[in-house]
Amino acid sequence: MAKIGEECGVFGIFNHAEASNLTYLGLHALQHRGQESAGIVTSDGSLLHAYRRMGLVSDIFTEDALSILQGRNAIGHVRYSTSGSSHPKNSQPIVVTYSKGEIAIAHNGNLTNARTLREELEDNGAIFQSSTDTEVIVHLIARSRQDSLMKRVVEALTLCRGAYSIVFLSPECLIAVRDPYGFRPLVLGRLGNSHVIASETCAFDLIEAQFVRDIEPGELLVIENNVLESYKPFAEVKHAHCVFEFIYFSRPDSFLFGENVYQVRKELGKQLALEQPADADIVIAVPDSGVPAAMGFSEQTGLPLELGLLRNHYVGRTFIEPQQSIRNFGVKLKLNALRNVLSGKRVVIVDDSIVRGTTSRKIVKMTRDAGATEIHMRISSPPMRFPCYFGIDTPVKEEFVANGLDPSEINKYLTSDSLGYLSQDGMMKAVYAYKSLQDKTFCSACFTGAYPIEIEDSKIKQKQYRLF
Amino acid sequence: MAKIGEECGVFGIFNHAEASNLTYLGLHALQHRGQESAGIVTSDGSLLHAYRRMGLVSDIFTEDALSILQGRNAIGHVRYSTSGSSHPKNSQPIVVTYSKGEIAIAHNGNLTNARTLREELEDNGAIFQSSTDTEVIVHLIARSRQDSLMKRVVEALTLCRGAYSIVFLSPECLIAVRDPYGFRPLVLGRLGNSHVIASETCAFDLIEAQFVRDIEPGELLVIENNVLESYKPFAEVKHAHCVFEFIYFSRPDSFLFGENVYQVRKELGKQLALEQPADADIVIAVPDSGVPAAMGFSEQTGLPLELGLLRNHYVGRTFIEPQQSIRNFGVKLKLNALRNVLSGKRVVIVDDSIVRGTTSRKIVKMTRDAGATEIHMRISSPPMRFPCYFGIDTPVKEEFVANGLDPSEINKYLTSDSLGYLSQDGMMKAVYAYKSLQDKTFCSACFTGAYPIEIEDSKIKQKQYRLF
Amino acid sequence: MAKIGEECGVFGIFNHAEASNLTYLGLHALQHRGQESAGIVTSDGSLLHAYRRMGLVSDIFTEDALSILQGRNAIGHVRYSTSGSSHPKNSQPIVVTYSKGEIAIAHNGNLTNARTLREELEDNGAIFQSSTDTEVIVHLIARSRQDSLMKRVVEALTLCRGAYSIVFLSPECLIAVRDPYGFRPLVLGRLGNSHVIASETCAFDLIEAQFVRDIEPGELLVIENNVLESYKPFAEVKHAHCVFEFIYFSRPDSFLFGENVYQVRKELGKQLALEQPADADIVIAVPDSGVPAAMGFSEQTGLPLELGLLRNHYVGRTFIEPQQSIRNFGVKLKLNALRNVLSGKRVVIVDDSIVRGTTSRKIVKMTRDAGATEIHMRISSPPMRFPCYFGIDTPVKEEFVANGLDPSEINKYLTSDSLGYLSQDGMMKAVYAYKSLQDKTFCSACFTGAYPIEIEDSKIKQKQYRLF
Amino acid sequence: MAKIGEECGVFGIFNHAEASNLTYLGLHALQHRGQESAGIVTSDGSLLHAYRRMGLVSDIFTEDALSILQGRNAIGHVRYSTSGSSHPKNSQPIVVTYSKGEIAIAHNGNLTNARTLREELEDNGAIFQSSTDTEVIVHLIARSRQDSLMKRVVEALTLCRGAYSIVFLSPECLIAVRDPYGFRPLVLGRLGNSHVIASETCAFDLIEAQFVRDIEPGELLVIENNVLESYKPFAEVKHAHCVFEFIYFSRPDSFLFGENVYQVRKELGKQLALEQPADADIVIAVPDSGVPAAMGFSEQTGLPLELGLLRNHYVGRTFIEPQQSIRNFGVKLKLNALRNVLSGKRVVIVDDSIVRGTTSRKIVKMTRDAGATEIHMRISSPPMRFPCYFGIDTPVKEEFVANGLDPSEINKYLTSDSLGYLSQDGMMKAVYAYKSLQDKTFCSACFTGAYPIEIEDSKIKQKQYRLF
Repeated sequence: MAKIGEECGVFGIFNHAEASNLTYLGLHALQHRGQESAGIVTSDGSLLHAYRRMGLVSDIFTEDALSILQGRNAIGHVRYSTSGSSHPKNSQPIVVTYSKGEIAIAHNGNLTNARTLREELEDNGAIFQSSTDTEVIVHLIARSRQDSLMKRVVEALTLCRGAYSIVFLSPECLIAVRDPYGFRPLVLGRLGNSHVIASETCAFDLIEAQFVRDIEPGELLVIENNVLESYKPFAEVKHAHCVFEFIYFSRPDSFLFGENVYQVRKELGKQLALEQPADADIVIAVPDSGVPAAMGFSEQTGLPLELGLLRNHYVGRTFIEPQQSIRNFGVKLKLNALRNVLSGKRVVIVDDSIVRGTTSRKIVKMTRDAGATEIHMRISSPPMRFPCYFGIDTPVKEEFVANGLDPSEINKYLTSDSLGYLSQDGMMKAVYAYKSLQDKTFCSACFTGAYPIEIEDSKIKQKQYRLF
Repeated sequence: MAKIGEECGVFGIFNHAEASNLTYLGLHALQHRGQESAGIVTSDGSLLHAYRRMGLVSDIFTEDALSILQGRNAIGHVRYSTSGSSHPKNSQPIVVTYSKGEIAIAHNGNLTNARTLREELEDNGAIFQSSTDTEVIVHLIARSRQDSLMKRVVEALTLCRGAYSIVFLSPECLIAVRDPYGFRPLVLGRLGNSHVIASETCAFDLIEAQFVRDIEPGELLVIENNVLESYKPFAEVKHAHCVFEFIYFSRPDSFLFGENVYQVRKELGKQLALEQPADADIVIAVPDSGVPAAMGFSEQTGLPLELGLLRNHYVGRTFIEPQQSIRNFGVKLKLNALRNVLSGKRVVIVDDSIVRGTTSRKIVKMTRDAGATEIHMRISSPPMRFPCYFGIDTPVKEEFVANGLDPSEINKYLTSDSLGYLSQDGMMKAVYAYKSLQDKTFCSACFTGAYPIEIEDSKIKQKQYRLF
Repeated sequence: MAKIGEECGVFGIFNHAEASNLTYLGLHALQHRGQESAGIVTSDGSLLHAYRRMGLVSDIFTEDALSILQGRNAIGHVRYSTSGSSHPKNSQPIVVTYSKGEIAIAHNGNLTNARTLREELEDNGAIFQSSTDTEVIVHLIARSRQDSLMKRVVEALTLCRGAYSIVFLSPECLIAVRDPYGFRPLVLGRLGNSHVIASETCAFDLIEAQFVRDIEPGELLVIENNVLESYKPFAEVKHAHCVFEFIYFSRPDSFLFGENVYQVRKELGKQLALEQPADADIVIAVPDSGVPAAMGFSEQTGLPLELGLLRNHYVGRTFIEPQQSIRNFGVKLKLNALRNVLSGKRVVIVDDSIVRGTTSRKIVKMTRDAGATEIHMRISSPPMRFPCYFGIDTPVKEEFVANGLDPSEINKYLTSDSLGYLSQDGMMKAVYAYKSLQDKTFCSACFTGAYPIEIEDSKIKQKQYRLF
Repeated sequence: MAKIGEECGVFGIFNHAEASNLTYLGLHALQHRGQESAGIVTSDGSLLHAYRRMGLVSDIFTEDALSILQGRNAIGHVRYSTSGSSHPKNSQPIVVTYSKGEIAIAHNGNLTNARTLREELEDNGAIFQSSTDTEVIVHLIARSRQDSLMKRVVEALTLCRGAYSIVFLSPECLIAVRDPYGFRPLVLGRLGNSHVIASETCAFDLIEAQFVRDIEPGELLVIENNVLESYKPFAEVKHAHCVFEFIYFSRPDSFLFGENVYQVRKELGKQLALEQPADADIVIAVPDSGVPAAMGFSEQTGLPLELGLLRNHYVGRTFIEPQQSIRNFGVKLKLNALRNVLSGKRVVIVDDSIVRGTTSRKIVKMTRDAGATEIHMRISSPPMRFPCYFGIDTPVKEEFVANGLDPSEINKYLTSDSLGYLSQDGMMKAVYAYKSLQDKTFCSACFTGAYPIEIEDSKIKQKQYRLF
């Protein structure tokens, strides 16, 4: 799936001799949640130490960088955002000094009233050095008159609407908190005597930490003196877990909202096969994100799964496009079609989602050029038509191919022979096939437009915020 | 499979307005053949221009770098070698001035009499600035009294023994040549009015060039004034195509020695299933290289193929190992086992080969820790026991786990419940299952020790050659 | 003179097609005022563009960097500070967004009530991302309820005590302001239709701008729509121009407070010769800062000026000290004594000032080792004993060699044969020898301890402010 | 003086625990002899270790770089050359492997038969990887059949004509050699139990080594097992020490051919004053190279020496020229004229030499613009009209302003009021004023065209040698 706002992963660890090294490993495991910038802040008990850069975790953190990150407590962050706000100033964790000392914050999500809050803050004299929602939260904490960090955090977040899975680090304590809707995941683990926090359980696997439980929607954990205390300071609301984490965003090996992502993804493929079968010879996946659903589709239909599209994993950050680009090198640099697998075959191509449709169209062409006689696109989610305001990077409404086109028109645009989307009901059926998910409620606003929270900022005449 | 000498990919293009850009793309497609250094040399008709660096193709070649690579003809090279000779001095193409002007050379392969030739050259006053076999070839060309570059190249190569797929570039012409044994692949393509040369056909796919044919063992092509002439200047010998290109080294989407790599690899998996079935619940692959054989194994046995090991593709070049490395982060940084796929299951793990056994052992442990009740390792090639002297990077004989241990002992070392290798006969049967390969003869010396050429250098008391 | 707080240079230009290029040149000319970091912010009329880095102006600003600095208005800053706060976060100009839009600020000087103000701001919810005084000023502006930028700046600065020569840039206008005491210089120039602001006139010489006049103490200039308006919004106080700018800090070719620095420096040398003559054979300077005074000393005494100490200008930023450092490579890397000039001679060494005495002591030893029979140190300023709180980087009081030692004891420490300082009266006499300076009053608190402003912050229990 | 071929400095040390550190310091002291690239090669007794880069010594050699340069013996090199051959491939010391093992070479000078030798070598099969004369010498050594390194070096150099001051390093020994003419300096020193070699004595001063003596023209020193042996293997010729080292190239604090450079330079200024007095008010120098001669001129004439031109030492390597460059930023970036020193004055400007005249012309204009009423250019050497083939970087003949113009025409070009050069006789008189120089003979071919050696290469039809 092509890239669509601001996506992030967060990590935290308290009371470990190798806090910065483990945070570095944790961020490596969460790299898929944001490849643009990464940062770690540690606490040595009295001072915070920070290191943030643009780039991949494995490129940023040299031994020198890690050696300055001293202390037994740490938080970390990886980030991706639309190009407009791709700027060092916006990399996290943010670290500031205020009346009560130093504080660092790493935030996954987006606030729906960030602009409103920012305007109020600015009207009261606040200055901003970034365009992130996160800086708004810090200002609210700094202005709170509460006498403990926990209370200040609660007061600040009570004013915030939207999605947030956050880890805070002060010289003395680590606070982890998840918004009352539970949009984005946040999990608690244990490594020896240390408490660990992460966006996804795959980060625990790498450092060999034990998964303890999901941090609950609206739950706030304070870890201090290595004692963990849990609070539920916010009003209860109906939960709205992001279903798109299952569709595409999370790593297949993670346990999300209680269930394994790979299994759900495969079930989505089975359900897709039931709803949208195809008279074809083989099934192929758009790697890597379409692979589990394609396996489910193959299992359900009995059609053999073949390696029809090969992915080149050596694609760098700044690949240079030659000038003769009538041809679509963008996709070809990443994918190649296997001619003798596809030649003369009626092919089902399984992908997880379609955003703008441009990549899918190129994939259809590439498959056709490799000799496929029929091409049946099968998508393991409903037509995506609405922007996400809760932490997934989507385009504006007008750019979705499914905005204004029905599936038959999209099929025409893609030049495929048929196009089948999983239905909204089918998607939820696949999710609710898993017992651990049956008591959960989800946000699928990107497919339905039914946003769980009113988007306040959209009512404000938008002021242009810039980065420098 | 873990890394084992000097592996390379080469590319050449003659008469194209975007020679350097296309070479850059071609090298990108060949990146799997060498991730350590890369270089491009172009000819503008009178002068050569060169750019070589350590690193990945997509990182090395910025727009600035490509802009200095002027001219319509170009050759390129990607390289990997064992750490000892990992040095900028050894990056290719090599460019030198000699009595007849400038010449550049990009070489895939290894000479078996390089040391012997080097000693003779040094005894006659030659100076060397690298430790590569390739510099030996340039010296031989420079010393030739022949009156054309083609004849000088032939005279030089007539003195060389071993594996070489080479592209030469002079200000006026491009020469491509493959040793009489045909160890390493080399293919000829066409893009509009331009001739193109590459190690593998996948490079043609990316630039949308047409595959014309394999350059034959012992064939030498001269491209000048855009006229291509073919020569067969060397004595005929029995061909010895590298079977390991099929097993592991080439890209699945390439056509190698006439056949698609993915298909052969899948057939190897089927044959493996016939020879070494297992009473198990699921089949999983060691990604990415074990995937095609696992698909064949699954198809043959009917056992379901599952995603049991997930690969993290964000691994950088210089990943820092935390100090607490009792744990094997090396493998964990790349692979994670999916607990709920593996838990309680009897699992067949399919990999393409075992070299030292250390990685396989870690994979077995990781799978066991994820809950697998039985682990049956199945390898789609015979026990690897002999170093390659023809262009594949292997360890010395003593380091192969199969050197001195029989499969049951290796099984014990790996802590798997059973271990099954494909037999030598089975491997060749899978290869010869394809009609286009039935008239070919192969080198499988890494499995049998039956080297097609005597290794002359091993008889010389080895002098220490250093790099600076 | 060895390095002693925070030293800076500022530059601004309004309405010029090459605003960023000229700012770059202006900062190059002001490089002596700060070699640690540099930055430029431009305005294109609606947005600000910023580029700041650690390093020298000529290394930081590549063509790429300058090309992003679009617009006809610009301000720039060079900075040096004691190592503790040497951090990218503290580089200037600072750029922030507040309720009224964007603003950038470049500040030369130090506030004496910065900590007091910061505490008040923090108590009211302000967050800080740097440890600079400058961020305090931005907060005060952001909190002002005044309806024009000019009025907000005035309101903010009315709260500030201390030294400030500042240029502000908003998308629409440029504001330049000098504190009522006039501690640091700030000059106004003209280049065609453009107004130019700089710390020193040498910046005008390089870009061929005309010097118009000094910006007066307490004067605030607003340049908007290319109209310049002057205001005197602050209460009048007795001026306190920094005499040390004449002694050491400004460039010899600049006109400072109305007079040429080189001439004053030479006059200081003459006055030194009258007060502290020496029975010697030759006069030598400690290059480069001691040269003008040495010329004056030679002219007054008739003793020949010789090149006794040669300076190596190739000293890099991070020169590595070999381990065998019983020897004092620090000074030797910069200076070498000319044996055959010094051998057998009674030598007067003229330097502008002595801070800790360690460098002077090494120079004496070096000169003695080169064969000088007598060494008479002559210093063209009084004993320096008090830290500067107004923009010159000095050590704390305890580190001055003249803190607690009288000249005869210092002479003993330096191992010189005699040591003569210029008297306070003599220094002022040399300054007042110039008509244009006779109506001026100066700050010479580093010599006398008579600070023109009470240092408020010193009364606050110091909180530790950190950088990240 | 503006920059004019290939200029270098060399350094060597044998038997010191900190060989690489001291070489690094030695090269720092020799930085003025070449600012383009630098390199060090060390020997640990069995292997050579090398590090070479483009840039300044203090930027190139980090602690990491020095730490890989292990061993007790080392040689180093700094280099400058005209832009055409400014390429990493040409940086030194060159290190190669040949039949007898490894050898490194650092060379100051130029061979007059390099092209002739190179053609002969290439005709015999040699390949070249650089365009330097130095690679020719290495080939000659490699082809020698002599049984010791010393004999091979002698055999090789017997074939070479021209200027060479060279240090060689093999795993076992260090060889220093100076051509029979003695064009370029080379000195021997002692530091404890270590022998030291350098281009100039200023390198000894920095590391506190004792100057022992000049290495004599035609002398070859072999240092092995810390025993130094001296040889005179070449035929005697009339010495031809480079007089231009005194005029401009060497550092003022060095002892050159037996005499201190500063003293000679000052004497040149005195002689210039006798030959070319001027009716003027003040004398100013073009800093830094014109300062000693200006001091001599002032002393002889009694005219006061003033600081009329100030040099900015912060000029980086790649200073960006703004587009509005009708103005001559090139010179202005380095020099500024002091208006109130020059205004209304009749000024003598003393410089060491004039090459193309473009810089001098700009200096005259700058001085005039600063208010000088009369400008009298005085040059402490004769008109420079002939290219150097012996190690000074000069332009081709046609580019000298004195090629075809007599002094009065040059004066007109410079727009000065008068121009006076020191005569050839006067220059030699100043040099021979020093007893230690009276038995020496000099090369002043750049002034007279009387080359001590026939320039063989100029007779060959020039083949284009390129760099890659």
